[in-house]
Amino acid sequence: MRINYPRLLADLRHLATFGQVDSGVHRLSFTSVDQEARHWLLRRMTEAGLDARIDGIGNVYGRTRGVTKAVLIGSHTDSVPKGGWLDGALGVLYGLEIARACLEAGSQTDLGVDVISFADEEGTYRALAGSLSFCGQLSEAEIDAAKNQQGKNLREALSEAGYAGRPRLILDPSRHVAYLEGHIEQGPRLEIEGKRIGIVTGIVGIRRCHVTCTGQADHAGTTPMHLRKDAGSALIKCCYDLIQRFEKVRGPHSVWNFGHVVFEPGAGNVVPSSARVLIEFRDVSEGTLDRMQAEIQAAAALANGQGGVGVQATELIRISPAEMDSHLATMIEAAARGRGASTLRMPSGAGHDGMVLTRHAPTAMLFIPSIGGRSHDITEDTDEADICLGIDVLADTVQMLTERK
Amino acid sequence: MRINYPRLLADLRHLATFGQVDSGVHRLSFTSVDQEARHWLLRRMTEAGLDARIDGIGNVYGRTRGVTKAVLIGSHTDSVPKGGWLDGALGVLYGLEIARACLEAGSQTDLGVDVISFADEEGTYRALAGSLSFCGQLSEAEIDAAKNQQGKNLREALSEAGYAGRPRLILDPSRHVAYLEGHIEQGPRLEIEGKRIGIVTGIVGIRRCHVTCTGQADHAGTTPMHLRKDAGSALIKCCYDLIQRFEKVRGPHSVWNFGHVVFEPGAGNVVPSSARVLIEFRDVSEGTLDRMQAEIQAAAALANGQGGVGVQATELIRISPAEMDSHLATMIEAAARGRGASTLRMPSGAGHDGMVLTRHAPTAMLFIPSIGGRSHDITEDTDEADICLGIDVLADTVQMLTERK
Repeated sequence: MRINYPRLLADLRHLATFGQVDSGVHRLSFTSVDQEARHWLLRRMTEAGLDARIDGIGNVYGRTRGVTKAVLIGSHTDSVPKGGWLDGALGVLYGLEIARACLEAGSQTDLGVDVISFADEEGTYRALAGSLSFCGQLSEAEIDAAKNQQGKNLREALSEAGYAGRPRLILDPSRHVAYLEGHIEQGPRLEIEGKRIGIVTGIVGIRRCHVTCTGQADHAGTTPMHLRKDAGSALIKCCYDLIQRFEKVRGPHSVWNFGHVVFEPGAGNVVPSSARVLIEFRDVSEGTLDRMQAEIQAAAALANGQGGVGVQATELIRISPAEMDSHLATMIEAAARGRGASTLRMPSGAGHDGMVLTRHAPTAMLFIPSIGGRSHDITEDTDEADICLGIDVLADTVQMLTERK
Repeated sequence: MRINYPRLLADLRHLATFGQVDSGVHRLSFTSVDQEARHWLLRRMTEAGLDARIDGIGNVYGRTRGVTKAVLIGSHTDSVPKGGWLDGALGVLYGLEIARACLEAGSQTDLGVDVISFADEEGTYRALAGSLSFCGQLSEAEIDAAKNQQGKNLREALSEAGYAGRPRLILDPSRHVAYLEGHIEQGPRLEIEGKRIGIVTGIVGIRRCHVTCTGQADHAGTTPMHLRKDAGSALIKCCYDLIQRFEKVRGPHSVWNFGHVVFEPGAGNVVPSSARVLIEFRDVSEGTLDRMQAEIQAAAALANGQGGVGVQATELIRISPAEMDSHLATMIEAAARGRGASTLRMPSGAGHDGMVLTRHAPTAMLFIPSIGGRSHDITEDTDEADICLGIDVLADTVQMLTERK
């Protein structure tokens, strides 16, 4: 197969015109620009010779005809508000170009390439809706319940887009021998470490919890320090303790964030009656996440009752880590080596459709560098040379899978 | 002179009907209930035989006729939103009752009692406006500039109340030999230490500053810890450091408060780009305040630049401590001892009209206990026995001043 780089780049640039905002895109799921982008993609798949359709959740799916086995390649074409032009789009158009190149080459194997753009990965209505649906993990009740921030129902959006009532397509384990997703890194590691291809070992699990301190509001001028039940100072001490504790139990790629803090009532002359921090932490290892969680509980238990302040930790979100297929990862690594590209094995710190697929089919992801690590912003960008190297590595991996059959 | 306790208590209860909210009052400066309360007070002063008037800033002032020297006794009758019934009202009606009792006794001294209710102590438009005006410290330009939270001008409020254009009365140093103010403690110390009369040694100085950390917003999943410029964690560490530093340089009565914290953008999955804390600290010693301020600067300087985060401390408010007259304080203490009352020398952690007066006349304040330390709330209250003991001590102090002449 021969990858047509100018065609790939032209497709990427054209897709970026739907919802264009400067050098980025504002293409929220099921808005008119998102629908236009889906229908454009459907036409491009059809023109490539794929058997293409849009299903009942909005997934755009193009099958190679006349094969019983296929590598599924894809990602998503929706964006966050004022997001980047490559986030998701890259993986879908990698799939289209590879499928097109394979069909043009007229390969005589029975392993085809199927291409998919999963709906609403970014969660305008329901994060990962398309990939969850494709893997049989999204119930009708969950679709009924999904709403956007303005309170509009996903059902209504699907109906307006004309997708309501269509069957929802499902992964075919007897057909889909692998799922491959190319994506921008969305972080700075490849750039900083001078590597061109990231081999994703797994997608981190995510946990969120609140630590809440409850004291008593008092006049901050007239209440002596030793008589206060100061929720604010209790929270500062507890967070400080947690930073030390996390450092002790962290893995090499663990991350955590104290992203939001609120003191009530929040006045300069009133001792805080309550204080709360939102803590998010991520790791590829469930064991590491468990250890970090245990440290939060221990820190809260230690602080609880000190200075008359109650301290409680509450879990809000728990998403398990998703491991990628190690054979496929090794194959991508070999493909990259074959192209002379430097590689870095790394976890993905962000969620992707691949984290859903990996529980149902052998799955691998490759990353290409994000300039300055920027993403979820219109300034997101990647060098064209890296875009072209990424598809070469992915196409070579498909070639290896074909030869392995 | 003979204090009429039922009359004092009836006056206090009656004043509390203006703007009554359950057991508290909502009597913001220059609202109709505040004006009604002022005019009721004016009538009560006149009925007592005082030469009473309301001046151009709204101060209600009653002079004893036929004397060349007078002890000035007072406080304020405005309240904070949903405040307590005794805060301010107590000191004014102590003055009224003592003046009344003196006039009834027909004392043959040339030391009279003048009574004053200072306007807007609580700062609906301008904190301490009445006492500042009375001490010649409030310019016409400052009155022009004063606004309430709804943007209404103090000038407009004075005009609506009918006070505009009236002369503003001024302290007369040749007449006013002392200023005495009785007040509820607004804190828990007297109650907890089992003392009935607080001898105010001084009113704390107040400083406020912001410590602001400036980093960079990044994806909290994909940005490795060592590559972050995390303003949130920097602020936690800086605040923790400050708590230790304050403990080292504090005086016996120093207080501080981390009352408000904000992290921006404030999302669980975004590394905070900025984080800010509002710190307020109070002490009777300017030197201690200077040392605490220096620790804030030192902590900010130490943290500045660590982890790529800029840290800056900015002073917002600086109010100097106000010492009370030590001779008068000793006299109040002796008067309390004469009544068999336990006393506690203590600073006032809150601001009062007395802090303005003390720069212009010998000034003393006494505190009576606040039940549960509650204040600036409708639950504020004091035992009637303590209210009566307070006026006895104050009346005895006036008697001592009379005899000293």
